[in-house]
Formats: sequence, structure tokens, C-alpha cells
Amino acid sequence: MNIATQKNVYLLSDGDASMKDLLGSKGANLSEMARLGLPVPPGFILTTEVCNTYLRDGHTLPSGLMDEVRQALSTVEKSMNRRFGDPENPLLLSVRSGARISMPGMMETVLNLGLNEQTLRGLIRQSGDERFGYDTYRRFIQMFGSVVLGVNKDYFEDLLVYQKKQLGLVEDTDIPASVLRQVVDAYLEIILDQTGQPFPEDPMEQLRMAVESVFGSWLIPRAVAYRNHMKIDHTLGTAVNIQAMVFGNMGDNSATGVAFTRNPSTGEKELYGEYLINAQGEDVVAGIRTPKKLADMAVELPRLYQELSEIAYRLEHHYMDVQDMEFTVERGRLFMLQTRTGKRTVQAAVKIAVDMVHEGLLPVETALLRVEANQLSQLFLPAFNPLDKQKARQAGRLLATGLNASPGAATGMIVFDPGEAKTLAEAGEKIILTRLETCPDDVHGMLAAQGVLTARGGNTSHAAVVARGIGKPCVAGCEACKVDLKRETLTVRGKVLTKGSIVSIDGGTGEVFEGTIATQPPQITEELEHLLNWADETRRLGVRANADTPADARKAVEMGAKGIGLCRTEHMFMAEERLPVVREMILANTSEERRKALAQLLPMQHADFKGIFQAMNGYPVTIRLLDPPLHEFLPNRDEAYAELLRLEKADPYQDAVKFKHAVLAKIDELREVNPMMGFRGCRLGLVYPEIYEVQVRAIFEAACDILEEGGAVQPEIMIPLVGYAKELETIKVQLDAVAHEVMSRRGRWPTYLFGTMIEVPRAALVADQIAKHSQFFSFGTNDLTQLALGFSRDDSEGRFLARYLEKNIIPENPFETLDQGGVGLLMEMARDKGRQTQPDLKLGLCGEHGGEAKSVQFCHRIGLNYVSCSPFRIPVARLAAAQAVIFSRQALLPELGQPFSQVL
Amino acid sequence: MNIATQKNVYLLSDGDASMKDLLGSKGANLSEMARLGLPVPPGFILTTEVCNTYLRDGHTLPSGLMDEVRQALSTVEKSMNRRFGDPENPLLLSVRSGARISMPGMMETVLNLGLNEQTLRGLIRQSGDERFGYDTYRRFIQMFGSVVLGVNKDYFEDLLVYQKKQLGLVEDTDIPASVLRQVVDAYLEIILDQTGQPFPEDPMEQLRMAVESVFGSWLIPRAVAYRNHMKIDHTLGTAVNIQAMVFGNMGDNSATGVAFTRNPSTGEKELYGEYLINAQGEDVVAGIRTPKKLADMAVELPRLYQELSEIAYRLEHHYMDVQDMEFTVERGRLFMLQTRTGKRTVQAAVKIAVDMVHEGLLPVETALLRVEANQLSQLFLPAFNPLDKQKARQAGRLLATGLNASPGAATGMIVFDPGEAKTLAEAGEKIILTRLETCPDDVHGMLAAQGVLTARGGNTSHAAVVARGIGKPCVAGCEACKVDLKRETLTVRGKVLTKGSIVSIDGGTGEVFEGTIATQPPQITEELEHLLNWADETRRLGVRANADTPADARKAVEMGAKGIGLCRTEHMFMAEERLPVVREMILANTSEERRKALAQLLPMQHADFKGIFQAMNGYPVTIRLLDPPLHEFLPNRDEAYAELLRLEKADPYQDAVKFKHAVLAKIDELREVNPMMGFRGCRLGLVYPEIYEVQVRAIFEAACDILEEGGAVQPEIMIPLVGYAKELETIKVQLDAVAHEVMSRRGRWPTYLFGTMIEVPRAALVADQIAKHSQFFSFGTNDLTQLALGFSRDDSEGRFLARYLEKNIIPENPFETLDQGGVGLLMEMARDKGRQTQPDLKLGLCGEHGGEAKSVQFCHRIGLNYVSCSPFRIPVARLAAAQAVIFSRQALLPELGQPFSQVL
Repeated sequence: MNIATQKNVYLLSDGDASMKDLLGSKGANLSEMARLGLPVPPGFILTTEVCNTYLRDGHTLPSGLMDEVRQALSTVEKSMNRRFGDPENPLLLSVRSGARISMPGMMETVLNLGLNEQTLRGLIRQSGDERFGYDTYRRFIQMFGSVVLGVNKDYFEDLLVYQKKQLGLVEDTDIPASVLRQVVDAYLEIILDQTGQPFPEDPMEQLRMAVESVFGSWLIPRAVAYRNHMKIDHTLGTAVNIQAMVFGNMGDNSATGVAFTRNPSTGEKELYGEYLINAQGEDVVAGIRTPKKLADMAVELPRLYQELSEIAYRLEHHYMDVQDMEFTVERGRLFMLQTRTGKRTVQAAVKIAVDMVHEGLLPVETALLRVEANQLSQLFLPAFNPLDKQKARQAGRLLATGLNASPGAATGMIVFDPGEAKTLAEAGEKIILTRLETCPDDVHGMLAAQGVLTARGGNTSHAAVVARGIGKPCVAGCEACKVDLKRETLTVRGKVLTKGSIVSIDGGTGEVFEGTIATQPPQITEELEHLLNWADETRRLGVRANADTPADARKAVEMGAKGIGLCRTEHMFMAEERLPVVREMILANTSEERRKALAQLLPMQHADFKGIFQAMNGYPVTIRLLDPPLHEFLPNRDEAYAELLRLEKADPYQDAVKFKHAVLAKIDELREVNPMMGFRGCRLGLVYPEIYEVQVRAIFEAACDILEEGGAVQPEIMIPLVGYAKELETIKVQLDAVAHEVMSRRGRWPTYLFGTMIEVPRAALVADQIAKHSQFFSFGTNDLTQLALGFSRDDSEGRFLARYLEKNIIPENPFETLDQGGVGLLMEMARDKGRQTQPDLKLGLCGEHGGEAKSVQFCHRIGLNYVSCSPFRIPVARLAAAQAVIFSRQALLPELGQPFSQVL
Repeated sequence: MNIATQKNVYLLSDGDASMKDLLGSKGANLSEMARLGLPVPPGFILTTEVCNTYLRDGHTLPSGLMDEVRQALSTVEKSMNRRFGDPENPLLLSVRSGARISMPGMMETVLNLGLNEQTLRGLIRQSGDERFGYDTYRRFIQMFGSVVLGVNKDYFEDLLVYQKKQLGLVEDTDIPASVLRQVVDAYLEIILDQTGQPFPEDPMEQLRMAVESVFGSWLIPRAVAYRNHMKIDHTLGTAVNIQAMVFGNMGDNSATGVAFTRNPSTGEKELYGEYLINAQGEDVVAGIRTPKKLADMAVELPRLYQELSEIAYRLEHHYMDVQDMEFTVERGRLFMLQTRTGKRTVQAAVKIAVDMVHEGLLPVETALLRVEANQLSQLFLPAFNPLDKQKARQAGRLLATGLNASPGAATGMIVFDPGEAKTLAEAGEKIILTRLETCPDDVHGMLAAQGVLTARGGNTSHAAVVARGIGKPCVAGCEACKVDLKRETLTVRGKVLTKGSIVSIDGGTGEVFEGTIATQPPQITEELEHLLNWADETRRLGVRANADTPADARKAVEMGAKGIGLCRTEHMFMAEERLPVVREMILANTSEERRKALAQLLPMQHADFKGIFQAMNGYPVTIRLLDPPLHEFLPNRDEAYAELLRLEKADPYQDAVKFKHAVLAKIDELREVNPMMGFRGCRLGLVYPEIYEVQVRAIFEAACDILEEGGAVQPEIMIPLVGYAKELETIKVQLDAVAHEVMSRRGRWPTYLFGTMIEVPRAALVADQIAKHSQFFSFGTNDLTQLALGFSRDDSEGRFLARYLEKNIIPENPFETLDQGGVGLLMEMARDKGRQTQPDLKLGLCGEHGGEAKSVQFCHRIGLNYVSCSPFRIPVARLAAAQAVIFSRQALLPELGQPFSQVL
């Protein structure tokens, strides 16, 4: 656009809410309010394009700009019946920045602009209040001095504090006019001293300097850093909002405040906010005086409260969303200084969205977009009371931050021995099991504890995986915590905590606190039920749960899952009483010995599967056969070695010594350099076919039981880590035979599916071949991400991944939000190739991405049949899947990395 | 095809060499010889289709087949002037199997068929030799009895041995007729005893039974296993060759032998082979008598030798390849029993191919296909003398077999301490450095040793990678060897070898022998030079070397490389005197400290690069910046801990203790769960930019030196482990600035390229984006294979991979031969996407596949610009690239897993 023909300055009455790109968010909303006839101080806006021109042209204002400003100013002067720079009846201005996207506190504001020795006298005359005049002048010099002239704020503050001290005063408002006059003189002195120039007296010059300063503030480091962090485009630029000053500090019939049309914390329909009598806006923000609750205003200033309520109602209905407003009362007259969409907690977001539908304010479709799906999971976990947690932080009780390995909050005594943890828990104690790292021998302790804390290991360490599986909060790899298992101490930041010390861990943030923090239970409301039911009516993507036990399965159904998408059978091998049998199986030297051990596991697994089938009541249950490397079932090497030495000392000839030697040898034999890519998944099943055989036998015995009892059942057998069609083909032939054998003997014929995980990149590349032997694909995006990106999850997160995110080399953590550009491409390839061979191939995703909104929406877009996730994330998936439908209807697509703006 | 109209039986005169599918290889060549008028015993062939029909129809011969046989037989009878089953003048037959692809020793043969009590008398009359008659009958009963009737061979052998012992005889030929008569009776007794049936007397019945037996032998377990192993199609079936018997055992003017038209071991042009006077063919094979060299026949049977020479010459010219022939002389008359392409050593293959071109026998193009490219690498490494190695094996000196981690052969004394190894080597000793596993501290010992032996670690362990890099033979992960570093012993198979014991290791096979085995030096001949020059004239694919030092670079040029495709800079960090500085760099806590340590490395690296540039004399040099995880430069944890304890004991307050503590802490900090996917490659370069910066500075200083000295230089900077375009972009900006800074200062402007490895699957998927910042891609197929397949090389090979190959789940080891169906697909995708962004993008492959023939041919087909491999594999790549051109001209493509048939 040609600058010459471009309109650089908009009067508020010329704009509207749709012009956010040009006028900034604040300016557009001010214009909208003006257009609606609401009481807005008159003013005008310099556009964001002027900002970009200014910055592009080496910080030079477009020629003629100040003439346009002068012209707009004259309109304001007329409307206010005051003149800018007039010594008799001066108009003062506020100059505020305002970008397309709010960047709170990042850029500059100058209030009370237009004051000098002459206009000051006019202001005193206007207000009839000398103290007010000098106070306003003092504020202006300080603000202009620090913001525009770059003088350190402390010079002004220190002087004011010194003066108050001299006089024995506490509040700024107590300083008498005579002292303020001296302060003003001293301030002008500071300016001359620090800048070498006298304070600019010419109001138009002040205005020009303030405008340049606001534009320039777009590039100050903290603003740039903020935009980097929030992934805001650096080319947006800021507008400058110039309005007539109104004063909330003109006495006891003046006030300033903020108001929400509904309670942003609970969603209650009530005018909510705070205000201060006789104050300027900055006083509310600065926290120098404690503001009053807005409800008090109904008593203190009833007429104005009434007027504000009516405006609030009008704005909420106009914008059809909660408004967050700033207002000022000048001598009994209400002015609106800002309105914007109100940020809110997820609890409030749910209630407000549903209430607004019931009030007829919103269609369901819009309401479904008003809640950020990812945040719903917060509602289903015990959480720390935010205030209590804040207090703990302020009190310096935050000990360290580790990895947020499994969400939820827990408080309890630290106990280092899993056996002792169990005993104490059975005696009613709340325990945080604290270990260097965990291993299968610790699971009974983990089950008994409220939460788990480990000093080592990543987000896929044993502790993390098991904790997520059993739904316990876990902070893993907290390297600042030095755990000494012998002395039973946890040393962190020089503090030594002994067994029994109380800690509180937040598995959602990785924080570890000393002492107790109050937790609040999950808050499931009627409104949430409404919202999720609407989501179910809207979505097309199926939602299943990852669930390994009957209890998990029941929880999953309760949360709205229509099936199990991932039942991990390894947890059936890890139960305390089974581990010895599993180890016998691993130590077996022949297929025969292995079969013998497995035979002992058969009835246990049979019962497990039956329980799960019963809980799922006919919904499909996808069972993944054994996946992890066998060494995960063996004890920790160091501990096994210590145990061996202990036993040898007692009696070197006892059988237990021989056995421990065999265990150690097996641990060494199975040790792997890169276990993630080692001897696991179907590779185990192919080398030791008897393992999968027993698992399938247990599944079909259980399925036949259900049919015999008149129930319904839909087992789906899933093979992990397939990369070659031949792997799947070989296993399928073997397992179909076992299934057939059981079904023939039992005379029951449950229908079942046979399928595979797609988690090795090669599987996606040859999906056409694999689909010949598979009735479904389930994308295991955890491992697929690790392999496609070459990121070991355990090793990346603590090391380079944080740095990558910080430097914006990758936009999001690919283990949280699916890497659509890379992993997503493999998924689409597998879909196309798979369905080319088998058009009705069922496609699902299991893995943590199945409970993350953007990933779920991607799954909808590429046409998967379902996603599967942890039970507490099912509501996320249900809502996200509905939002995906709405986005595609509206051809909307939330940008990567852009959080919902209205969420608190 | 309808059986009724199908021709089941072919007379030799009806077939030719092109009919191998139908007549089998042996039959087709017999027909061809007959067609050429060479003296072949008359006969006929039952086709492979009959075999398949027979097997398909439940082991039933097609109706009417025996009539066709009878008819063909009558032609043979006429030609031989004898009749089958005629008591007066009997015709005897040989019945031999013969498939499309030779399966030596796998299937059945019956000789002398047609004998019974009656025809025996006719045979004695014909030959005038009673002993011959009974001996032939004895042989027939034994062969028919064991092959067709399934009687255990030992019954016959034991009886014969017993008889000889009774009579005090040594050779079978010494047994008189009278005794043989008793043997025959006893044999017939055995048959009746073991089968419950008398020996079949009817010659036609014998023939039918023998035919069925040959067909049936297609499915005997050893044949099936052999075909599985050799990847031969099970549906080929075998033909049956039925010919008139001729007898090499009819006295001293009879003989039998094998002959090659050229020496299969050296390639010399000479009639080469062995023969036996008065013997049947099986005697040569059985090794009961020691055969004579064929040269002796020129003296002993000069006329026949002359005749054989002429036939050999004719056959070689006819087939235009070396022939491997079987012949029999019956009472002064020469018969050809077989001719086929002669297998040969790679030395011979090269000489023969080149000689034949010079003789005008072959066009160059054909000669280039006559050598299996992969085998060329054998010529460039010291190898054990095959005979000497065979003897060692027979003497039970093979101790164990580990992983073939780095090829070549070496003999020396085992030494466990690297320092001691160096000292002893400097004193002139030959050393095999023997360790549990190696670490960077051991490299000086590895450099000093002849070879390296480790008890642990895989093909990508430190020992393996370094040994391949420095070109030393290495056997790694030899788990049968128990290494005790304290006692300095190596225990294997119950034997305890102490320091100084002599072992011989073959890094190409993984074998470890006790004692000395003679090695033979690399044999580089004039013929090989010829062949490789022809290959260079033919090929279009460039061939570069992986070379890390000036010495490597000189070797590479010598071997014909036209550039370096992979210069790994990590080896520059591992030299003994640099390691302390590198560790200082790793232990640094700040960027400043790191820079200080790096500054010390700068001049050393500068000199390294200069040396390499000089050696490459203007050819391009692709330099990969630091890739391995930093922990690879730190000492082994256990040893560091032991050292710390030792130091602490001496004086816990010395500085060294503090330092060792820091080292240990760093080792623990850098420890990774899956190092292959951890903090390495460009991730290091992005987190510690100063490392890459110093490397690039050293490269450009060196390049400017070369230009200043009037030389030419083409550096190519290559970034490892890139997965995101942004990684490359970020690094490129930084490095271009450093390069520019150096070049400006020096006033020299070497042209350089900037590019990336494609080794993370994601990089292939987003190659269009990556190509924006890259002038070349080099496929790192070692890591790309690991990640695309999810196979950790270290953990797969010893565990499931062997099982997978054995069960034919994957056709070939994907770390040896590129996985075209999976990894290859990613490469093609990267090529298409990369060239879409940048049409002149240069594409190469570096990694071990660059020196493997089938992989090289794939690289040619998909249009790469070059491959890069270890220096000693360059000839492989040169020849394979030429063969690729010829294959594509001839639309030929060697099937996966099918070795060149003529190679010994």
C-alpha cells in the first residue's frame, strides 16, 4: 500500500471490532464501544501499519503524520471542550500501545500527557484541587521520564520514598500539595541530570515523542522475547491509542476498576472484579492499595454500579462472550477504558459455555469451541489448591523440579523401601515412594504409595510408564534430589530429608515441595456432562481407552470410552506374585522349561482378560501381546549383585546363591545398548513363540467364558513392533491356530480381529504388504515418534529437547503434540497404502497423543476410526474430536502452538 | 499345460543348453554337448515338469510315462547296440538328478542300473572280467539299496570292511572276484532282511523305482533346507538324466576324472583337474584313493589327454566361460559326462575375465559381469592362507567365533593392557589387543596392535567402529571368551590363555584360533587394474572413500577414489594426546571454558585437515562435523571409579581426586538409555555451537593454506543427524559466518558446499524443506537403517537378527545389504522431495552399504551421484557401479540373495 494514500489515523468513531489487524485489539474494541454509544473517552488511533513503516524507515515517522494527528486531536478537543496545551482549560491525553494480540505489560503507556508548567495551572483550575494537579504532574514526569526518556525509574521512586519517610507518611495520597510541588521540581532536576536536556515543555513535542516511544517499544528485548515465547508474529506491529484523559483520582466520587461479566474462576454469572476509590488505573495494577470487591460498589456507588452492570450485560451480549473490562469514574461519571474477552479457568470455561447455550446466547457448536480440550484433563485428577501451592512457592518450599512423568498431585511421607511403603500404607499412612529409579521389584510399593519420586530416569523410565499405567502421580528424573538408599535420606538444595519427612509432588509440573499442600479432588460437574454429551453428538472419531486392568476398564467406561484401544499385557506379568514365575520363564534354557513357567501364568491371565471383558461389556478390547524387553522383568543389577554377596557371605553353597548367579548372568546377557530398538515386541514373539501362544490361549479361554455366560465380547489381538509383513504373517498363522484350537474345544466362536501396531517407520513404508495380514492398524505414535525423529525420549527431554523448544528449532514437544509434518506424513502414507490393500482397514491411534487435542484433531482430519488414551484424558479426546468436526465445517484450523486466547 | 499333450521325455539329441528350466542344468548341457557332436553316452531326460506333476499327484508318475521311457530307451539301445535287461548283451544305465540350479550332493544318483543275476552274466561276458562284473553288481545293490530302498548304507560298508579285514586287504580293488561273489549274496540278504522284500530283479521295475526316488528326493529334508539356505525356489523341481553307463573301472585303459578349462584357483590358462585310472566317478569324490593331477594324463594317456584338451577348448569357446567337466574313459574311449560353468576364486575370476577379453573371447561388458564385485574386497586385505586355516580348523585350534567386526586377518600375542601393547609393539612384537570392551582410552593400544579382540559389544561398539576406521582386523563380542583383566587371562572352552599366548583372528569371519596361521598379503594384479579401468569407463556413479586421516586419504586415492565422501572428525578428537583436552572441553561448565579447551584443539585440527586436503589434491572432501555422543570420549565408568578409589586411598585431598570426581559425575550425567538416539550429531552442535565453530574454522584455515600454496581444494561441510530444516538453517547461518570471517581475513575464497546427512527418517520425509538449506544430501544408511527398522545394530545381530535370517523373515542382513523395500523407499522419497526444491542437489551415500555391490547398484538405479565407502571396498563399488550400468542396459537385475553362480 502506498503511504501517501493510506489512512494513518482513525478516530474511535471510524473503527469497529473487526479492525484488530489495523487498530490493534484494544483500539478496535474501544471503537466498537464508541460505535455502540457507550461512554468512552474520545480519542483516535495510529495504525499498526504506521508502526511497521516507522520501524522499517529507521525509526522515522511518516511525513505528515503529525498533521493528521493534529487534525484528529481537534475533534477530541471539540468533544471534550478542552484544548491540548491550553494553559486555561487543557486537554490531557493517555497514550497507550495495543497490538493485534495482547502482550500484557510488554509495551509502553504514557498517561497525563500534555502537562507543563502552564497547563498545570489550568488543570488545577479545572479540578479545583492543587494537590491533584501536582500529583498528576509528578506522575506524568515520572512516567514520561522513564518510558520515553529512559531514565531509571528508581531515581523517582527513591526520592518519593525518602520524602514520605522524612514526613513519617505511609500512603502516597497522604503527601500534601506543598511537598508534591518540591517533588516535581526535584523530578525535573533528575531529568536534566540524567538526560542532559530539560523536560520537554511543548505538548505536541511530548505527544510525538510518546508515539515514537510506543512504536519503538515493539522491538525492546522483553517484547521480542515474549513474542518468541508465545509464537506471535513479529511483523504485526502495535497501534497507538490516544484518548482524552479521564481521572479516577479526582476525589471520593472518582474511582477506577476492572470488571468481568462472569466470575472467571468459577464461571458463576455475576459481575466480578475490583475497584479503588480515588485512584488511577496503575494503582490497581501496582498493588499498592488493596482494592475492594466489585460487589461493594453496589453499596458504595449504587448508580454507577447499576450503569456498569448494564454496560457489562450489553457488551457480553454484543460479543457473546465473557468480557474483561476496565473502567474509570471521574467525579461521578463512568468511562469505559477497555473491553476484551475474559480469560478464565477451565472449570469456568465449561460452566460459561454451557450456561450461555442454556441462556440462548450461543449455539452448541460455538460453545464446544469455548473450552480448550487439553485442559479438561485437569478436572479429572487430584490437584493442589492453587492458592496453597502459590503460598508454598512463596515460602520457599519448592525443593526441586523434575520431569512431569505422570500427572496428579500427592502429599505423603517419603519412604525409600517399597516393602516398607506397602506396610506403612496398609497402616493408613500416605506414602511418597522415593527411589533412585524403580524396577519391577518396586511395583507393589508403587501401588501402595500416593505418588512416586525418582532421582533418575526419563519420561519413559520404568517409574514413569508404570505410574501412568496405574494412574499415580510421579515426578521422575529429579536430578537435584540426591537419594541415598542406605542412609535413607533425600538431600536437595543442602537440606537433608529423612524417612518420614513430608513432601508434596505435582506430577503435572514435576515440582517437589517440602511439607503438605492441600489437594482438591476432581471436580466433575453437570455442565461438563452436558458439554461432553454435545461433543459426542458432534464428533465422528471414536474414543477408546488405554486400560490394563478391570478397574481401569470400568474407569474408562465411566469416562465415556467405547472400547479399549490398548490393553498392555506386560502389567499382567509385573504383579508381585507373578514376577517370580515370569523370571523362571526368562531364565528357562529350553522351550519346554519356558512352557512350564508360562503354564503357571495361564490361569492368572485368563482371569485378567475375563475381568476386562466383563467390564467392557461387549465393547471391543484391543490386546497388545507382550512388548517390553525381557530385562525389564529382572531385578536391578546393582541390587541383585548386593543380594548375591549377602547370600554368599551367609552360606556360599545354598541354592539361592546358584539361582542369583543365574539371574545375574541373565541380566548381563539381556543388557542392551539401545533397548528401545532391541529385542522386544514381536521379535520376542518370534524367537519365543510360546509366550504369545499362552497369551492368546488366555484371551480365547476368557472370551469363550463370556459367551458361555451369555455375554458379548470383541477381542482384537495386536502385535507390537512389526516392521516386515513376514513377521506378522508368521505370527498370525501360529496364533490363528491356537485360537481355533481353543474355540473348537470350547464350541464357542467369538469374532475377533488380528492386527498390528504401526510404530516402526518401516511398517508405514510397507503398509500395503502388512495390510495383507492385518485387519487393523493402531499407530503407536510414542515409538513411531522416537524412531522417525531419532529422539530417545528418555535422553532427549532432559538434554537437547528443552533447548530446541527454547530456540524454536521445533515448535512443540513432539512427545506431547504429534509431529504432523514428519510422523503425521508416515501415518498418512500408512493409511493410503494400507487401505489400498484393504479398503475397510480399521485405523486407530494409541499412545499419549490420543489424549492431546491437536493430535486428536489431526487424527480426525486424516480419517482414523478412533483414538485411544488414558482414562482421565478421554474427555479431552471427546471434546477435541468434536472441535475437529466444527473446525473442518468452518474451515478453521488452530495454528500450531497458539493456545486458546481466552484461557486463564 | 495339459499333461496329455506334454512331452515328458527328451532324448539328449532333442535338447540344448537353453532348456535348463525343463531339462535341468546337467541335462541341458549334456544335450548341448550331444548336439555339438561330442562323445556323450546316449540317453534321455525326464523333465522337471514331470517331477512337479509327480509330487503334486501324491507321488504318482503320469500315466503312460513308462511307455515314453521305453521308447526313448530303445533309441539308446540301438545307439549302444545293447539291450536293457538283455542277459546276453545288457545295457546298464546311470540315473541322475539335475535341477535348474545345481544342488551338489543334495539329491540322489543310481549307477549301474539294470543288473540282476541274469544280466550280470552278460556283463561279465561283455567285459571278460568276472571281478569287474561282481564289483559292479555289488556297487549297484549298495547304491540302489541305500538310495531307492532306504537301507542304511552302513550295513553294506561294515560288511565290506569286515571282509577286507578278514583277508588282510587294504583297497577295495584288491578284493578278489570270489569274495565279491559272497559279498553280493550277503548284500542281497541284507536287502531282504531290512526291507522284507527280495531285491527287485526286473530292470524296468528298477528303473521306475529309481526315477520315483530321484523325484522324491526333491523333498527330502536336506534338499529343502539347502534350498531355503540358498533361497532357491521350491517349485523348480528336478529332471532325471538317464544315460547308458560307461565304465572307468574296466582296467588300466579306463579312467574317470574332472577337468577345468582353466585353473579355478589362479585363473591360469591350463587344463586343470584330477583323474583316477580304473575307477568309477564316485571314487574320485569319495576320496578313497588319491587322484592324480590331470597334467600326468598327458604322459599316461597322451592321446586321450589330447582329445580331452580339444573338447575343453571347444566347450570353453562354445560357452565363452570356464568349464568344469566330468569325463570317463572306458577301455580307451573318452566320454563326457558333464560340463558346467566352473566355479572359481575371485583372483581367478579377475584373471580369467581379463584374459578372455584379451583373447577376443569376451566383450568387456561381459567380462565385467564375470566377477562378483563384493568379493573384490578380499583382495585388499591380509588374509589367512586358506589351506593353513583349514588345517588349524581340523586340528581343533578354532577357539570361538565372535562378530566379524572389522575384516582382515592377524596373528599375535594377546596383551590386555593398551599401554603395554604399545610398548611391546614398539619393541617389534605383534599384538592382539584383548579387552572386555574398548573405550577411547584404549585407542593408542589399538593403533599399536595387529588386531583387536573383545568379549563384549556389537558391530557398532567402540572397538568395531574404531577398528574399521583405522583398518585393523577386529573380532568383537566374542562372548565365549572370558576375559579377566586382573589376572590377565583369556578363558575359552576350558582353556586358559595367559598374556603372551599366540592367537590368530579373522575379522572377516569372526573366528579366533589358537596359535599362528600363515597370512597372505593382498594380491593386486595387472588384470585387476585392467578390470577396474574398464569398470571406470563404464560406470556413471561416482565413487568416493570414507577416510579420516591423510594416510587414509592417500590410500583412498590409490584405490581409485575421486574424493572423500565421509571424513569423520571424531577420530581427530580421540588421538591419545588430544583426549585430555577433549575431556577438558566436555567437563567445561561454561561456553567460555569450552572455548578455551577447543582453542587448543584448533591448530591440531587445522593440520589434520590440511594434510587431508593435500592428499586429495583438489578432489572434494566431505567433512562431517562432530557426531558421537560426548560420553564416547570419557573413560569407562568402572575403570574411572576404580582409579578414583585408588587415588583416594593414597591421598584423598589431592587435586586428582577432585578431578576424577568431576569426571565420574560427568559420566553419570551423560549416560544415556538409548545413546543411538540421544544427545549427538547436530544436537551437540546446536547446544554447544562453539564445537562446530572451531571445526569449521580449522577447515577454512586449512583450505586457505592450500590456496595460498597454489593448490586446489573443495571442502564440503556435512551436518549429521538432521531431522528438521530449522536445525540445518540455524547451523548454516552460524557456520557461513565463521567461514566468511576466515576467508575475508585470509583473502582467499575456496568454494565450498554445505549439506547434510539423511540418516533420520524424518529428514527423508521433509527433504523438500531441508533441501532449502543444503547443497547436497548424503544418505547415512547405517543409522537410517537402524531407525527405519527400529533395529539397534548392537542389540540385533547377536539376538533376533540371526533367527530372522534363518527363518527367512527377512531375506538379508539389512546392515550388510541395503533394505531396498524400506530404507530404499525413504531414499527415493528424499531424492524426489529434495530435487523438487533443488533440481541440482548432489546425492551420495556414505555408510557401509557404499561398498556392497547390490546396494551400490541400487544407488545407481535411483540416480545418486556417488557412493562412499572404506578404501579397501572402493574396487567393489567401482565394479558394482559398472555392473549396474550393464544390468540396466540388459534389463537384468540380479535377484536378492542370489549369489553369482560361478564363484567358488
